[in-house]
Amino acid sequence: MQGLHLTADLHDCQCADFWLTEGTILLECLTRVVAVAKLNVVGQVAHHFPATPIGRGGVTVALLLAESHVCIHTWPEQGSVTLDIYVCNFGGDHSDAAKALQEALIALFAPRHVERNILHRGSITGHLV
Amino acid sequence: MQGLHLTADLHDCQCADFWLTEGTILLECLTRVVAVAKLNVVGQVAHHFPATPIGRGGVTVALLLAESHVCIHTWPEQGSVTLDIYVCNFGGDHSDAAKALQEALIALFAPRHVERNILHRGSITGHLV
Repeated sequence: MQGLHLTADLHDCQCADFWLTEGTILLECLTRVVAVAKLNVVGQVAHHFPATPIGRGGVTVALLLAESHVCIHTWPEQGSVTLDIYVCNFGGDHSDAAKALQEALIALFAPRHVERNILHRGSITGHLV
Repeated sequence: MQGLHLTADLHDCQCADFWLTEGTILLECLTRVVAVAKLNVVGQVAHHFPATPIGRGGVTVALLLAESHVCIHTWPEQGSVTLDIYVCNFGGDHSDAAKALQEALIALFAPRHVERNILHRGSITGHLV
């Protein structure tokens, strides 16, 4: 279960609108980018949110990986996106693949501001319950 | 997109084995616990991993929420689980619901050690791209 969890919160995205509103297109692209990063998809799901008085609805996309998961949420009315890429090290160290995938997705959404976070997961340093 | 992302890495889980190996049961229970926390499911997906020479295969479960997502990965051969609960604050502050959900899931898996992390997401404090 030891591995790397990368998060990135993207603001003021300059990409074409459909990347923030069309889950099917986003899922298809994400699947290809994951394959390029040599990670392996084992499941997927997407949801489109309805429009609200403040703008068009966003999408949520989750890709289950043999190496763990990728989740994307979009807020088209704000031009914002959150990315989660978690890869465990079962069968090898997938950290470089996760980092490459994150950079590819950030390039896709073309944000003006990014807040990144790196979390190393699975080490036994926590508290007794 | 501002919100709270809770992670917990659970070690030496004392729960019944099926919680770590049966995605259908885990998904059903998770759906109920999420409803009790007054969060709203909008999609779900599960994957069972095959057994390996070191033990039975684990499961990955992702629940898409109106408030963002929940992901669970299990490693039955290690008695380990990772939890992710991310709730954005669109439509209200769901932080208390996320914390209640996390504690309910930790109680379900009954780990002897837990590594928790709290990540506040969506604030514009990041770097220009």
